[in-house]
Amino acid sequence: MQVLDRIESFNKFIDFEIESFNKSLLHKKPINLYAPIKYTLELGGKRLRPLLALLSCDLFDGSIQDVLKPALGLEIFHNFTLLHDDIMDKAPLRRNQPTVHKKWNTDIAILSGDTMFVQSFQYVMQSPEFCLKEVLEIFTKTAIEVCEGQQMDMDFETQSQVSIAQYIKMIELKTSVLLAGSAKIGAVVSGARPEDAQHIYEFGKNLGIAFQLQDDILDVFGSKNLVGKQTGGDIVSNKKTYLLLKTLNIADRYKKEELELWMHTKQVDPNLKIEAVKAIYEYFDVKNLAREELLGFYNKSLAHLEKIPCNKAKKEALTAFTQNLMDREN
Amino acid sequence: MQVLDRIESFNKFIDFEIESFNKSLLHKKPINLYAPIKYTLELGGKRLRPLLALLSCDLFDGSIQDVLKPALGLEIFHNFTLLHDDIMDKAPLRRNQPTVHKKWNTDIAILSGDTMFVQSFQYVMQSPEFCLKEVLEIFTKTAIEVCEGQQMDMDFETQSQVSIAQYIKMIELKTSVLLAGSAKIGAVVSGARPEDAQHIYEFGKNLGIAFQLQDDILDVFGSKNLVGKQTGGDIVSNKKTYLLLKTLNIADRYKKEELELWMHTKQVDPNLKIEAVKAIYEYFDVKNLAREELLGFYNKSLAHLEKIPCNKAKKEALTAFTQNLMDREN
Repeated sequence: MQVLDRIESFNKFIDFEIESFNKSLLHKKPINLYAPIKYTLELGGKRLRPLLALLSCDLFDGSIQDVLKPALGLEIFHNFTLLHDDIMDKAPLRRNQPTVHKKWNTDIAILSGDTMFVQSFQYVMQSPEFCLKEVLEIFTKTAIEVCEGQQMDMDFETQSQVSIAQYIKMIELKTSVLLAGSAKIGAVVSGARPEDAQHIYEFGKNLGIAFQLQDDILDVFGSKNLVGKQTGGDIVSNKKTYLLLKTLNIADRYKKEELELWMHTKQVDPNLKIEAVKAIYEYFDVKNLAREELLGFYNKSLAHLEKIPCNKAKKEALTAFTQNLMDREN
Repeated sequence: MQVLDRIESFNKFIDFEIESFNKSLLHKKPINLYAPIKYTLELGGKRLRPLLALLSCDLFDGSIQDVLKPALGLEIFHNFTLLHDDIMDKAPLRRNQPTVHKKWNTDIAILSGDTMFVQSFQYVMQSPEFCLKEVLEIFTKTAIEVCEGQQMDMDFETQSQVSIAQYIKMIELKTSVLLAGSAKIGAVVSGARPEDAQHIYEFGKNLGIAFQLQDDILDVFGSKNLVGKQTGGDIVSNKKTYLLLKTLNIADRYKKEELELWMHTKQVDPNLKIEAVKAIYEYFDVKNLAREELLGFYNKSLAHLEKIPCNKAKKEALTAFTQNLMDREN
């Protein structure tokens, strides 16, 4: 099978699983609990986590059939975290549509999120018997780390000093361990050797950090329609992204004061603020500095993939996936 | 071992597990994520769910050691639901102490609740290998039902008509399936026969409904200190309890109008309202009607227990537990 055909057919498998899941929700009651779950999954998304699980399982010659349900569980889990994060971030939109807490209310968003969390477990535990315990250990460890990352992210909001190292740790927990865990679960389900499962975990982890740094860049320098949310949102909300932290690190006193003035001025036209902060970012070329950092993680990721002895064509599918991810504009 | 000694020693085992768990949280970071979890578990409680799991496991001659971790998971899960319910109910107090969303904030309450949810899975999955899948199936099914019950409860708030049958279904899901599931998990871990595991499930379910009806009665007719929350809270918030629904069912037009007037009048002295509604309840003797309904479920519960062939002394421990629960004043 050609590399892209492979990815495409895996995506079809995943879409089918998600559609079946959504159909199963149609007649469930109470409606106020299940309609928001269906709505959330129908908002779409790149389905990166299940795809990674399938590609990883396939890399080690595992059966795709065995990994489909846990992969669906990983996608439901990811969407659950988005749902609860959107409440905490007070986000009005997700993929150009109202968030659940806006369309319904916060209580419903909390509770339908909790329900998705249980459902994600119900699918992850449909892993083959021989690796059930190990898969559940990876999954629960990952889930705890995602919560820790989200809490660090919230703590940063009121913290005056955040180092680049702390920031990288936060995005590792909040974003990349789930990609890593998805890849590792795919490997474990396939019966891969522990050292290879670890390589694919590290591959996913480093890729995830690169992916999040890319997100930081796209939020400022991406184009609105493609990203599916307002560009510059991170600037408006003074979010401590890599770009902001790096700029605060390298800026001279005057530029730093200018930046902080924009950050602390309330009731300012958001577009003015975005343009001004963007100009400071461009002045210090932090977009490229971020890209350099990103490339470091990206290369580390590929180095781990290289170390896995396996079918070349299958590895190419994962490399293509990675490439796609890094070339994306949204 | 004497019946009460047995319960007491089981309680000591459970307290030890909870204390060890709390100690393990002490140095975990981020502090804002883990401190609320420790706080929640240190608020105390009757630890009914783990106790029921231990008593049930013991009833079928299972090893207490095998059920301790899943029992701890059940208690953590229960406390997670309290934490999220308190956000949705906007409750300021829990066991006479500020709730997590009041002491910290809503975001932290959502996220530390999510973390407890994962932790509960981590303990439940420490069940013996031979029954792991079955225990997880009971646990996840129960968790989904608890969410459904909470959503029904919230839906009732804005629903003009709620039947007694719907109310019983709601408390079955919100409260009693977790008692039932705890008892069944204890049985499954012990390796009990499926029909006996089902009897103990039904025992727990009916007991749970009786327990919740008792709660409704105590909220109105209990004494403040013992209940640990303001008496009459359900009346003040117009909560559709058994007492209210029954009264609306049997009251004549005039008394019904009087009751509805109290319900719909805003800015009324809460103590006046409590006294007035209580007087209407007393007029129709609904306290005793509720007790009759409660006794129906209580007797059904005991009938299921009777059907289990087992050691008489061990069964007496469960009967004593049940008796205690029904005689409680808080």
